Amino acid sequence: MAFQVFDTTLRDGAQREGISYSVVDKLAVARLLDEFGVGFIEGGWPGAMPKDTEFFRRARTDLTLRHAILVAFGATRKAGRAVAEDPQVRALLDAETPAVCLVAKSDLRHVERALRTSAAENLAMVRDSVAHFVAEGRRVFLDCEHFFDGFRHDPAYTASVVETALAAGAERVVMCDTNGGMLPSQITAAIGALTDRLGISPDRLGIHCQNDTGCAVANTVAAVEAGVEHFQCTANGYGERPGNADLFTVVGNLQLKLGLPVLPDGCLEQMVRVSHAITEIANIAPDTHQAYVGAAAFAHKAGLHASAIKVDPLLYNHVEPALVGNGMRILVTEMAGRASIELKSRELGLDLAGHPEALSRVSKRVKELEAGGWSFEAADASFELLVRSELPGEDVPRPFSLESYRVLVEHREDGSVVSEATVKIRVRGERVIATAEGNGPVNALDEALRVGLTKHYPELLTFGLADYKVRILEGSQGTGAVTRVLVETVGDRGRDWTTVGVHNNVVEASWHALVDALTYGVSRTAPAEV
Amino acid sequence: MAFQVFDTTLRDGAQREGISYSVVDKLAVARLLDEFGVGFIEGGWPGAMPKDTEFFRRARTDLTLRHAILVAFGATRKAGRAVAEDPQVRALLDAETPAVCLVAKSDLRHVERALRTSAAENLAMVRDSVAHFVAEGRRVFLDCEHFFDGFRHDPAYTASVVETALAAGAERVVMCDTNGGMLPSQITAAIGALTDRLGISPDRLGIHCQNDTGCAVANTVAAVEAGVEHFQCTANGYGERPGNADLFTVVGNLQLKLGLPVLPDGCLEQMVRVSHAITEIANIAPDTHQAYVGAAAFAHKAGLHASAIKVDPLLYNHVEPALVGNGMRILVTEMAGRASIELKSRELGLDLAGHPEALSRVSKRVKELEAGGWSFEAADASFELLVRSELPGEDVPRPFSLESYRVLVEHREDGSVVSEATVKIRVRGERVIATAEGNGPVNALDEALRVGLTKHYPELLTFGLADYKVRILEGSQGTGAVTRVLVETVGDRGRDWTTVGVHNNVVEASWHALVDALTYGVSRTAPAEV
Repeated sequence: MAFQVFDTTLRDGAQREGISYSVVDKLAVARLLDEFGVGFIEGGWPGAMPKDTEFFRRARTDLTLRHAILVAFGATRKAGRAVAEDPQVRALLDAETPAVCLVAKSDLRHVERALRTSAAENLAMVRDSVAHFVAEGRRVFLDCEHFFDGFRHDPAYTASVVETALAAGAERVVMCDTNGGMLPSQITAAIGALTDRLGISPDRLGIHCQNDTGCAVANTVAAVEAGVEHFQCTANGYGERPGNADLFTVVGNLQLKLGLPVLPDGCLEQMVRVSHAITEIANIAPDTHQAYVGAAAFAHKAGLHASAIKVDPLLYNHVEPALVGNGMRILVTEMAGRASIELKSRELGLDLAGHPEALSRVSKRVKELEAGGWSFEAADASFELLVRSELPGEDVPRPFSLESYRVLVEHREDGSVVSEATVKIRVRGERVIATAEGNGPVNALDEALRVGLTKHYPELLTFGLADYKVRILEGSQGTGAVTRVLVETVGDRGRDWTTVGVHNNVVEASWHALVDALTYGVSRTAPAEV
Repeated sequence: MAFQVFDTTLRDGAQREGISYSVVDKLAVARLLDEFGVGFIEGGWPGAMPKDTEFFRRARTDLTLRHAILVAFGATRKAGRAVAEDPQVRALLDAETPAVCLVAKSDLRHVERALRTSAAENLAMVRDSVAHFVAEGRRVFLDCEHFFDGFRHDPAYTASVVETALAAGAERVVMCDTNGGMLPSQITAAIGALTDRLGISPDRLGIHCQNDTGCAVANTVAAVEAGVEHFQCTANGYGERPGNADLFTVVGNLQLKLGLPVLPDGCLEQMVRVSHAITEIANIAPDTHQAYVGAAAFAHKAGLHASAIKVDPLLYNHVEPALVGNGMRILVTEMAGRASIELKSRELGLDLAGHPEALSRVSKRVKELEAGGWSFEAADASFELLVRSELPGEDVPRPFSLESYRVLVEHREDGSVVSEATVKIRVRGERVIATAEGNGPVNALDEALRVGLTKHYPELLTFGLADYKVRILEGSQGTGAVTRVLVETVGDRGRDWTTVGVHNNVVEASWHALVDALTYGVSRTAPAEV
């Protein structure tokens, strides 16, 4: 068995409403997926999406992958056009990936009514396109769009698309449940009927499921049980409508329930870390109830169970949580282990390994902060400031010290709502008072701080607030809620950094994140001040 | 076929972290489930949970069900105790429900290590308990906890529990995947092995699945395909850890994919409304990507699809969205139809049917507001104020008019963070200025308003802010986000009401909700003032 774990988080997964990755985001997600050990990363559609074209360009220099190979997605040639003259095909070659994944129509109704071409021309498009990329030395996967609907409607035609692609040299032909309407028993039956009809082994096929019946994971597992060895998933099941098959749940089920070795050794236990880091980059609230990786995936509440769990935890857990990097209790504090902190610091170029006492202090501090709702998974700049403040010889330059701030929100007689902030700070020995207005209280605070600082730190003008994300934690009990704020700042030459703040007052939480953002930015350019 | 749709939202579903229903909440959820047409509503565990005891007491007078019958949940008698002398059994009878669902151990390891009793005594507990409730005239369901793990470990023993319960008169014996570790193919195999072993028809069995492999829905469907006709689910899949099988997805799949008539006519299209109303009561952010009912369940983003959708929407939808009360576009505005507004008004004792022009104005206003992020599903008091403001002869008393307010958040020199609010209002012709402090900006605003109003409206002292919920909408793009605030107020004699406010400034959003809350409370006790 040679399983192909094919991830399409960055292509099909990006169709999820609300997701908008930058190129930097895409590179970061690709690195995480590689650490999880997937075999293929479909990075986007070069040519069709400028950001994706740029991603593949930067990937050539900025992305070193240990396990995965990069795949560019595209369509078969246009109807009535020679494959070598199709600019979309050209853009796909220009992405310079070792593999491509081509989408083709395989439901005759879609060929005729959506593509408006003939059954024969569609087959020719498949044949020409696959052969072209094979001749160019690429590994070729063919996604059969609407495979299952098509196979139900006109099995002969849909099977002929599969046959044509395989004959032209496609490595795998992928059966896509594009509309997501299938159930597992139907998947099993269709695969049996197709392989019987064509006389092929199911290992020539792949599977790609959408989750419109809530069965994307089960459908993918059913296909693998039927002999399919190539499966396409997305991290956390992100995707259009109800999403795609969740990579983590599928892999967990295949490895731990069916005993199939789909990942390289040592990768499975990265599951929780990788899943959560991707939620932060996507800025989608993590689903605490997600199978395997959710903070509540192994959390027990039922009084019925509590005493028995003491006797034998495995009587009440479907798998050992540590196998996927999860724990029986609150995830976030568990994750703040010494090893992961050391690892993360090393990534940032800081050597905590040589300073065990500083490492202990950082671990303790991170644990305390994470227990209070802080999260450093996506806030590298805040984390770096924290580590540097504990490392001998790594003084953090503080561009200013705060005396006080004041934010006003006023609903005036004329009905207008105005936000205004005043900060009183000390900058290089000078006391500065600055006031500014903003769209809202946080924007006003940011503006006031900049007004007060630019005389001494003109470089502040080169960077600005790019994004501002608010998450209410423990939202179900209003009174106990804390607010976590993430601030993303963009500096010159496109560098960006993210900082975090947590407080039960949204304004104070934002203040923490803003101060870290400016401190980090200034520390990159200015000398330290105490 | 006589399908039993058995809902356990109020019992097993309440195990989800963060859910804490009041008795009023439980009654409201039960009414909604009944409107959706489920056959059985498991309301809780009387005796074990005081709130559940109270729920069953109030249900006898306050709950009229059209489709469902109420089920009380409990355990078999304690080991070594006569069934008639077990107080937990007594409490279950006292709930006076037509049916009970008893949980029993069916995995020998749990019998011996968790329950610490013998294999034989456990069977006697099942036999005695089932027979006792049958003799008392109750329909009895038996939940076999850890059925699948037990059946894998020691098939003979687990099968003997099933056999004992059926022989004692249980109407259905329910196979529970308590730890949630099963896959559909394993469910199918286990049901076949059990029915073969006992020589029974699968229609004597029920299924109850947890979602730890992301397959709870698929497992439930697999059991029904294997001949099981009783299935236990929860609304939106709420439940411990990754949750239970989602009632809505399971029913959607059975009715629309397998053509099985599991609901009474006319109920399926209530799906979206019922699902969303329950999310509001549970105060769980609705999963916009939930199958069938999510706002994004039929939303299309892929450019690939857009043109083809115009040709034939059904080429790209796995089912017709209207069948489940959903639409292809944004759900929230679609729901603000005239009929549902008229219906909701009637519930509140307001006759919009006789005033078609007022109904048009209200419909238009609700559509506009919902498009801007407002939601009236859980904010009946705000909705009632809105309807009354449009109905002839239904003047809404406005206890005050606003001149202006000002909220300050100050981070002082000593590091303390202080919130203070001042309101300037007109109350019964008098101009009032009032200032108060609070834990945060909104609490300060609420306090200041009360200080300013209590002279003229001393009844304000009898009600107070009970809960405060904030939700950031469209949270993925920080700048475009709006904030929705729900305020729950409790008056004297335990009456409570909920109001809503939306604005891009959280303070202004809260203000709207606070003003509605006070206006509604005062309008219940004081004469109108213009």
